[in-house]
Amino acid sequence: MSTLEAKLNALGLALPPVAKPVAAYIPATRFGNIVMTSGQLPTVEGHLPTTGRVGQDLLPEEAAGLARIACLNGLAAAAAVAGGLDKLRRVVRIVVYVQSADDFHGQPAVANGASEFLLALFGDAGRHARTAIGVNALPLNAPVEVELVVEVED
Amino acid sequence: MSTLEAKLNALGLALPPVAKPVAAYIPATRFGNIVMTSGQLPTVEGHLPTTGRVGQDLLPEEAAGLARIACLNGLAAAAAVAGGLDKLRRVVRIVVYVQSADDFHGQPAVANGASEFLLALFGDAGRHARTAIGVNALPLNAPVEVELVVEVED
Amino acid sequence: MSTLEAKLNALGLALPPVAKPVAAYIPATRFGNIVMTSGQLPTVEGHLPTTGRVGQDLLPEEAAGLARIACLNGLAAAAAVAGGLDKLRRVVRIVVYVQSADDFHGQPAVANGASEFLLALFGDAGRHARTAIGVNALPLNAPVEVELVVEVED
Repeated sequence: MSTLEAKLNALGLALPPVAKPVAAYIPATRFGNIVMTSGQLPTVEGHLPTTGRVGQDLLPEEAAGLARIACLNGLAAAAAVAGGLDKLRRVVRIVVYVQSADDFHGQPAVANGASEFLLALFGDAGRHARTAIGVNALPLNAPVEVELVVEVED
Repeated sequence: MSTLEAKLNALGLALPPVAKPVAAYIPATRFGNIVMTSGQLPTVEGHLPTTGRVGQDLLPEEAAGLARIACLNGLAAAAAVAGGLDKLRRVVRIVVYVQSADDFHGQPAVANGASEFLLALFGDAGRHARTAIGVNALPLNAPVEVELVVEVED
Repeated sequence: MSTLEAKLNALGLALPPVAKPVAAYIPATRFGNIVMTSGQLPTVEGHLPTTGRVGQDLLPEEAAGLARIACLNGLAAAAAVAGGLDKLRRVVRIVVYVQSADDFHGQPAVANGASEFLLALFGDAGRHARTAIGVNALPLNAPVEVELVVEVED
């Protein structure tokens, strides 16, 4: 078992299978030593555990858990392109889109679900730049969507 | 006529002129072999054929056609920076912003208007990572906005 | 005093201290000669001078001024990673998120607050690609959020 996979298991998680390419795009692309993932929804075995707007249909804490799941799906997509989880060297940047009630402004706390997970898994190599914003509507009524930019081994 | 331009014509399309720099930014910038475009609106000869929110003022199918137009405008911007359409080697990533009714969650179908066009034009080199999100408001009341990251020849 | 800092002062501005890392992410990361900043809010000494939605709670002109402040905060974050303001060689790309009333579509005018500032400071090296979109909700009820991609010296 790889080092990162062991850490993942120690966090009570396992690398999910990569979601099959939906229609006309792919889960991640590589350019040089950079992998950019597609926007990832918090699907578990192909289904969204929860839908709705944060601050209206679900609590920020719940959405933070979903941000972690979406982030995990993004790592799976990046690992598939990079040749394995242990080829992921460093997380450069993430964007967290939070489907938000108009008066909800706690996007950073939701995004921390992804950020703290990356720190727990990668240590210092998980320290990333981040943009967190609210939006009124996401695909499939998902509460969050996460994309990653990851530096990978040669 | 260049190879990609011939394909574009076979799709019933032609490369539009690049929209003139609006105010204080430019249509695309190059860094190494990567070109990043500005967010592109689906303008045709300087005008938006349709405005409004998808799922309220226009149908997803109509918006998918606009996503294709915005994508074409993005290719024109990238080609101008790269030195011609045939200098575009591969589409790395796109982001599709869909001006959405609050209860519209079909952003992927709208974004497919851009993605399927890129596949038709570039073949395997058009397979890209993608983020599609809904937003409540876009410039000029445009239904979609598209940005591209493209790998270009030396 | 560095050249860019002198220009900044001539514009009546000074480089602010970098906002302390909030929670689990950092203000900017570097990959090769590229620095990507986190999404920057228009905080002044840790506080937002104004909150609300543009086109409803504040005017576009006011929001343009906030976009300039957020952009300045982003330059401070990039400079800290690059080793000083004069290590910033060129602005490649910016994204401006505008917390917008549903019927407000003047995001470009708001984003010009950042773009024109970058041109004034960097000259031709400040000519960047840009995406400007509206969103319904931003962290802390901030009217704008800005992120930067900057090319830096070795």
